[in-house]
Amino acid sequence: MQVTIHGQTQHIRTVAFDAPTNEVRLIEQRLLPHEFRVIATSDFRATAHAIRDMIVRGAGAIAATAAYGLAQGARAFRGSNMTRFEAQVTHVFETLRDARPTAVDPVNAMLEVQRKMQAGTTVAAQQALALTAAEEFADEDVAHCRALGEVGAPLIRDGMRVLTHCNAGWLAFVDIGSATAPLYAAQQQGRSFHVYCDETRPRSQGATLTAWELSQQGISHQIIADNAAGLLFARNQIDMVIVGSDRTLGRSGEVANKIGTYTKAVLAKRHGVPFYVAIPLSTLDWNLHSGADIPIEERDAAEVLGAWGLTNSGCREYVRVANPTSGAYNPGFDVTPAELITGIITPVGIFPPSDLWQHRHHLGG
Amino acid sequence: MQVTIHGQTQHIRTVAFDAPTNEVRLIEQRLLPHEFRVIATSDFRATAHAIRDMIVRGAGAIAATAAYGLAQGARAFRGSNMTRFEAQVTHVFETLRDARPTAVDPVNAMLEVQRKMQAGTTVAAQQALALTAAEEFADEDVAHCRALGEVGAPLIRDGMRVLTHCNAGWLAFVDIGSATAPLYAAQQQGRSFHVYCDETRPRSQGATLTAWELSQQGISHQIIADNAAGLLFARNQIDMVIVGSDRTLGRSGEVANKIGTYTKAVLAKRHGVPFYVAIPLSTLDWNLHSGADIPIEERDAAEVLGAWGLTNSGCREYVRVANPTSGAYNPGFDVTPAELITGIITPVGIFPPSDLWQHRHHLGG
Repeated sequence: MQVTIHGQTQHIRTVAFDAPTNEVRLIEQRLLPHEFRVIATSDFRATAHAIRDMIVRGAGAIAATAAYGLAQGARAFRGSNMTRFEAQVTHVFETLRDARPTAVDPVNAMLEVQRKMQAGTTVAAQQALALTAAEEFADEDVAHCRALGEVGAPLIRDGMRVLTHCNAGWLAFVDIGSATAPLYAAQQQGRSFHVYCDETRPRSQGATLTAWELSQQGISHQIIADNAAGLLFARNQIDMVIVGSDRTLGRSGEVANKIGTYTKAVLAKRHGVPFYVAIPLSTLDWNLHSGADIPIEERDAAEVLGAWGLTNSGCREYVRVANPTSGAYNPGFDVTPAELITGIITPVGIFPPSDLWQHRHHLGG
Repeated sequence: MQVTIHGQTQHIRTVAFDAPTNEVRLIEQRLLPHEFRVIATSDFRATAHAIRDMIVRGAGAIAATAAYGLAQGARAFRGSNMTRFEAQVTHVFETLRDARPTAVDPVNAMLEVQRKMQAGTTVAAQQALALTAAEEFADEDVAHCRALGEVGAPLIRDGMRVLTHCNAGWLAFVDIGSATAPLYAAQQQGRSFHVYCDETRPRSQGATLTAWELSQQGISHQIIADNAAGLLFARNQIDMVIVGSDRTLGRSGEVANKIGTYTKAVLAKRHGVPFYVAIPLSTLDWNLHSGADIPIEERDAAEVLGAWGLTNSGCREYVRVANPTSGAYNPGFDVTPAELITGIITPVGIFPPSDLWQHRHHLGG
């Protein structure tokens, strides 16, 4: 997508690779929205650190970073000894995998790169294939999100007011994003609309990342407190809701997503407002039978008890907002049942959540 | 209520008067929860400043402060000239009234003090009556909240998990509070329970004031992000909701309260959890026919775009959290319809919201 810094507009991906220098290039997301900076990791260890330290986050983005990191580690090998090369690749794979041990997307991405490397019979051939495979993985992520956008764009009509929650934007993928993809596609098709970004406490990804993205793309938007959506629904100021998903159950049509998503779905249902979930196919889970079986991560209480931001003097600081002798309960996700969801937007079409299972072969299940 | 500072427990009111020094004593609420300090205002101008600058806030608390401020100003008059005394009292009245021009409670409180002063025929007599009347006003506020607590306490059973929103606690009144009154009464009756405090963005009164109050009174509680309540309802972790009200329509049973209240009422209804609103009778509005006629204050975007808190170095600072090129929409209140409300807890009984009108004579309407 496009980023304008000091009046200069550039087109950029969240994750990219520079073959001559063997560097992975990443947007330093921890500095956003207050500072835009692209960093380069010069070896696979630095790339793993970038994943672990959340310089890059979001399922699609860390998957592509791991794919590039594997190619980077393979390409750094000097010599032609295949046994030693394979040992090096295994070491790189494990280092990148262990950077975010619960994430499944980086592992799947690296397995695909490894599979394609097998076609080569020399170290040099496998090194070349690794890079090609990583580039293909990143390009497929972009194509996937672009298709999702084309499928969802007709839902976004001129003058609409759209509510979003959290960030399922291009910063979470290689480009374009999932929940944001239909918005960007509709904008390219010449329609104008207004987006309300839920602040999305406690980590405020809506106020920071989504608002930054929309601002860079020139889409009209306002941040609201998570508490404010109810009033907007009641006053008919929201025409549609669109969110992303961390895990979508193919059997039940239930959607696990950032905490607060369920509440917005309940409000949308009450007010007859369509509620859409935009997903890449990789988030579909065909095994679990019930959302009650989805483990809900409990996160650090400090996220609820305070906030990160920029002080008057320009320092990025954490401030403790809450009463110092009180604790917090901080579940990271909730589960929205199928009956509250109007449609699941995928790269291959929009489906009522209850129809996912019957279309599973079409949906990669 | 009780406050423990450096191991010393004291019983204290939010607002009090010291007759020998003619000082109003106020908890400096802007420093809470990070620092507890009682300040004294030595003349009515300083008392008006304290109201205007929100050292004291909450309808009951600013009403009592204005009542005391009027007595303070009357008592500061030197001489026996009745005409000049009355001019002084009028000046004091207007100064205190203009400190929070949209608030109606301080005006009503001062009118009552003025009315009672009329019984005196000399300056000295009126000065004495002013103080008595202000003390009576404050005592009545306390008695009113205590009665509300006794009425509501039976709802709070042992082991319950109660959700609250914002702060309608003793800091918003002279003592005890409204939404908190049944909790404090149930605690005194020996029952134990757990309170989830909605953080209540954007001003975080739940995380700061309510959590501080509950902590001081030794009531088990946790702060949650406003987004988290939906998951708690879905998992049957909330047995009851209790909130306050800024304005309750006697005709329709609708309740205007802090932004986000409506959302919690919608969730409670969906999950079959009782939703109570605790109110002093002064918040009842017998004139408006519809909640749609209640003006919704739009507040400063900066509240949504950042947060106030304590930095690591112990300074109280505002940090900008949100994207710097994005704006925010910040409505302060929402309206909850009668059908979502189980009962209105008042000092004279609990009423279904649709029954308020038929009991209006009993309710001071």
